[in-house]
Amino acid sequence: MVSGSRVPAQRDGRGHPTREARLVEFCARLSASRPFELVIIGVIIANGIVLGLETYPHLGSAGLALRALEWFFRAVFVLEITIRLLAYGRRPQDFFRHGWNVFDFLVIAAIFIPGLHGDSALLRFLRVMRMLRLVRFSPGLRTIVTALWRSLPGVGGFLALAMVTLYVYGMAGWLIFGTVYPEDYGDIGRSLLTLFVLLSLETLPDLIEEGIAYSPWTLLYYVSFVIITVNLLMNILIAVIVNSMEEARRLEMTEGLAPGYDEDGDGIPDEVDRIAISQRLDDLRTLIVELERELRIDRDDGRTRRTGRD
Amino acid sequence: MVSGSRVPAQRDGRGHPTREARLVEFCARLSASRPFELVIIGVIIANGIVLGLETYPHLGSAGLALRALEWFFRAVFVLEITIRLLAYGRRPQDFFRHGWNVFDFLVIAAIFIPGLHGDSALLRFLRVMRMLRLVRFSPGLRTIVTALWRSLPGVGGFLALAMVTLYVYGMAGWLIFGTVYPEDYGDIGRSLLTLFVLLSLETLPDLIEEGIAYSPWTLLYYVSFVIITVNLLMNILIAVIVNSMEEARRLEMTEGLAPGYDEDGDGIPDEVDRIAISQRLDDLRTLIVELERELRIDRDDGRTRRTGRD
Amino acid sequence: MVSGSRVPAQRDGRGHPTREARLVEFCARLSASRPFELVIIGVIIANGIVLGLETYPHLGSAGLALRALEWFFRAVFVLEITIRLLAYGRRPQDFFRHGWNVFDFLVIAAIFIPGLHGDSALLRFLRVMRMLRLVRFSPGLRTIVTALWRSLPGVGGFLALAMVTLYVYGMAGWLIFGTVYPEDYGDIGRSLLTLFVLLSLETLPDLIEEGIAYSPWTLLYYVSFVIITVNLLMNILIAVIVNSMEEARRLEMTEGLAPGYDEDGDGIPDEVDRIAISQRLDDLRTLIVELERELRIDRDDGRTRRTGRD
Amino acid sequence: MVSGSRVPAQRDGRGHPTREARLVEFCARLSASRPFELVIIGVIIANGIVLGLETYPHLGSAGLALRALEWFFRAVFVLEITIRLLAYGRRPQDFFRHGWNVFDFLVIAAIFIPGLHGDSALLRFLRVMRMLRLVRFSPGLRTIVTALWRSLPGVGGFLALAMVTLYVYGMAGWLIFGTVYPEDYGDIGRSLLTLFVLLSLETLPDLIEEGIAYSPWTLLYYVSFVIITVNLLMNILIAVIVNSMEEARRLEMTEGLAPGYDEDGDGIPDEVDRIAISQRLDDLRTLIVELERELRIDRDDGRTRRTGRD
Repeated sequence: MVSGSRVPAQRDGRGHPTREARLVEFCARLSASRPFELVIIGVIIANGIVLGLETYPHLGSAGLALRALEWFFRAVFVLEITIRLLAYGRRPQDFFRHGWNVFDFLVIAAIFIPGLHGDSALLRFLRVMRMLRLVRFSPGLRTIVTALWRSLPGVGGFLALAMVTLYVYGMAGWLIFGTVYPEDYGDIGRSLLTLFVLLSLETLPDLIEEGIAYSPWTLLYYVSFVIITVNLLMNILIAVIVNSMEEARRLEMTEGLAPGYDEDGDGIPDEVDRIAISQRLDDLRTLIVELERELRIDRDDGRTRRTGRD
Repeated sequence: MVSGSRVPAQRDGRGHPTREARLVEFCARLSASRPFELVIIGVIIANGIVLGLETYPHLGSAGLALRALEWFFRAVFVLEITIRLLAYGRRPQDFFRHGWNVFDFLVIAAIFIPGLHGDSALLRFLRVMRMLRLVRFSPGLRTIVTALWRSLPGVGGFLALAMVTLYVYGMAGWLIFGTVYPEDYGDIGRSLLTLFVLLSLETLPDLIEEGIAYSPWTLLYYVSFVIITVNLLMNILIAVIVNSMEEARRLEMTEGLAPGYDEDGDGIPDEVDRIAISQRLDDLRTLIVELERELRIDRDDGRTRRTGRD
Repeated sequence: MVSGSRVPAQRDGRGHPTREARLVEFCARLSASRPFELVIIGVIIANGIVLGLETYPHLGSAGLALRALEWFFRAVFVLEITIRLLAYGRRPQDFFRHGWNVFDFLVIAAIFIPGLHGDSALLRFLRVMRMLRLVRFSPGLRTIVTALWRSLPGVGGFLALAMVTLYVYGMAGWLIFGTVYPEDYGDIGRSLLTLFVLLSLETLPDLIEEGIAYSPWTLLYYVSFVIITVNLLMNILIAVIVNSMEEARRLEMTEGLAPGYDEDGDGIPDEVDRIAISQRLDDLRTLIVELERELRIDRDDGRTRRTGRD
Repeated sequence: MVSGSRVPAQRDGRGHPTREARLVEFCARLSASRPFELVIIGVIIANGIVLGLETYPHLGSAGLALRALEWFFRAVFVLEITIRLLAYGRRPQDFFRHGWNVFDFLVIAAIFIPGLHGDSALLRFLRVMRMLRLVRFSPGLRTIVTALWRSLPGVGGFLALAMVTLYVYGMAGWLIFGTVYPEDYGDIGRSLLTLFVLLSLETLPDLIEEGIAYSPWTLLYYVSFVIITVNLLMNILIAVIVNSMEEARRLEMTEGLAPGYDEDGDGIPDEVDRIAISQRLDDLRTLIVELERELRIDRDDGRTRRTGRD
């Protein structure tokens, strides 16, 4: 477990680490260490609480304390990003190769933009964004987010079908109700919004009543829409859940096996490797199951099928 | 992988393909090719977007552009259907053997019906229907739709039970509330509608309040209805999902094995064959599992039961 | 399969079936035959449709036709029950041993109660009850109902816990809101009703608003209630579904194996036998899995644990 | 199964049980016996019903009877706790080592607090709390509660992610709507409440309408919030269910194997031991599955991939 595996330590010509190299090595070790991570997580959570408290008006002298804390948080975050940048030594461009690092840098560097101070909306927004860094620092959350994200392709088909269904029903709704209820179905945007909200089933009684007042046949429109989309949505939800759970279990399993989990501190690439490996393992397993099945079928080939002569 | 496997290429008497046969061969190859499919999918999506834009009033000069685009889409679709028809050579009747082909033809040919132009509702409806052809062209969507469709028989019993339950409760509702709340329970139609909307649980508080105002015993009616039907509906939903997922996985698996998947371009028959094969494989597997279980039971016949001496 | 297996055919002293015995044999065969079942199912469905049509006022001459049909249905049902009773020969008391038979008899015999005619509510109710006999005649529906019913014990603990939770929250709600909102929480009955309706989450926004107007601490009450009960209810629903699906699959499997499935036409006892057998099979299987697991553990006893050296 | 296994029976110097030791032995046997448990469960349920009846005003003479019953319940509970305390002989401090015992003692001893009588709210609350002792006495309920409780760590990551999401959206909501809709988003507390209630989807139509009135872009806020959180919540629910079901099955299985299940009558420690054992068994099993998989992969290493020769 050589700590230099991530960043080859810069050495001077004679093989001795220079003072700069020692600093880089120190930063690399620090930024990859668990206490560093825990401190940053703590500061992010404290920052979130302060942000929440600031939303209450009439804070009085407490407001001053909160403002002081904000300056403290800024200092900590600037220090954090400096250490992590220094850990990359003479190749800071490598730091920006990882999405999360770029996100961290932008969110923290934003406070140096001139004119961005006080209660400006953008600054507040950037401060809220800082809280998302919790996901970046917690291995558990990162695993879940990665798993959820990676489960999306598996339900891409369902999502596309749901969107086609929504769009076709939106167009049909505009054709049927466009002139009668322009507020709900006046154009395709309103139609889609009406139908999206209908997915929560909250507006079902009102819309059905409205529809029947126009024509009893509109019942077919609403009933078929509700049945089809509820079905599709449940399919998507369950598929996402099943996929992401399998994915998360796989990630956790591989994490448990891999010793140098958080070694490089940038999170994503290591995991991706692991996912690839575990997927190959899964593929192999599927293959074996299939082969076994084939063998069994061969073995039982001579037997008669239950409904074989239908 | 002879491309003529779908349509035996017409040849003249001496075994040389005639000019007509070459055209048929070209059309067959083109209509089965992936780029052709992708272009048509793109045009269908663009058509959908244009249809959506047309729903906004006051388009001004953009409206003219949209109308021009509509003519372009028509031309592309007519060309598409012509190519796919020509691919069948001298047996165009074969083209109409597949449901999707008939659907495509009707939807596209409709624009030639005299008197059907401008903003007539039927034409608009037919143009919306064109978007459903997305399902026809995308193998993924077609797989899902087929899987969902084929999962219905597995829940037929639940659906029938749900309908019997709804009908019996509808009749009972009419007996109990028919004269008191004629708007909700005046006849079996209104009863069924009231109870169908109640399935979304949105109207539960109002209906219970209404019922209690009439008699506290009506609480039994609503509580039992909600418990029974929510249970049944969840059963149906989960069963549909589980069945359709298995079906989709099976379809995908068999698709991976079959080399000439989209060779004939009409989608359904190939899949149906595959489903039949994979189902036979599944049946065999179930059979083997059962046999194995029996064998194991025989083997362990002499053993005592776990809680046998309690 | 000798058809006399259900009812030992009455024979005269010399071993020849008497005329009466031949009638009994004929009735037994008829009542156990598939066409008989299908005809009765058809008549029950037609009866249901007629009942539905009768709910519409102003039927005019169609009303007369419906009344005539009702007399026809009555005749068919009386004939049905007579045939099934005759099938039991000189032991009609055996007929009444099965719950469904008693139900059938009561529902059909009720029309002979003097004074029960015309539009009396009880008669209408009994006519609606006839539709439940669909479940009795359809093997599929009967399987599902049996499966759902038999899955209840498996969730008995959850149901008891849900009821204890509801009751404790009901009492707490009465303590907190009893004097402030007597309409919602005036006594334990109203409390339980309010909380039951809250399970549908429909009244959540209103109740929370009401509660906060009284004291912000009531938020704890509602939030904890919603989280705990939604969790419990989902547990119950999923457990019912999983259990009943397994049960139904087991029933179907055993049905597929048993040749004389509908031989005796009274449904329940046969199934119960099968369930018992399949459960014993399942128990055996669990036993084997456990034994195998133990063996495996023994085999790997000397090995070190995965994270043993952490 | 020596009954003294829980409490070493106090004996006098000569090895003969003293009169006191016999009393302790009797109390230990009684408090661990099934009838004792059933009687207490019955009294708790009766107590609950009486509490419910007391919520109705204008009870008249029945009120007196209920008050008399309450004194009876108190006597039974005091007797119960005395017997269970005596069962610990000269080491009553051991009794208070188990959380449930402390809970029992506090709830029952509270009636002796001077000044706490009549209709005081605290006394009523304590009487309601008595009903929670049902969970303590019923092994089934205790298993479920333990299982639900132990399934929480498995979804800790999801819960943390859901809370981060809620908080970030709460802050964003305050930034966007803070000044426009101070009632809903005036500070972080109101924001979080608004978004928590939105999780039930009840207020979705109103909030979306409100948001669009301010700016159509707010649609992005609501749509993304609903999609992300519904997804996360469903994940959490399903994970809790799956985990707690596995846990409950494990608990039940181990209960079936352990002969002296309820021997010590305090419930928790025994179960915890069993859970530990069964978890070790499960870990072993996982380990074996993994090893087997590896072996299989090795075995099939030389084989070609599934679709390799297509």
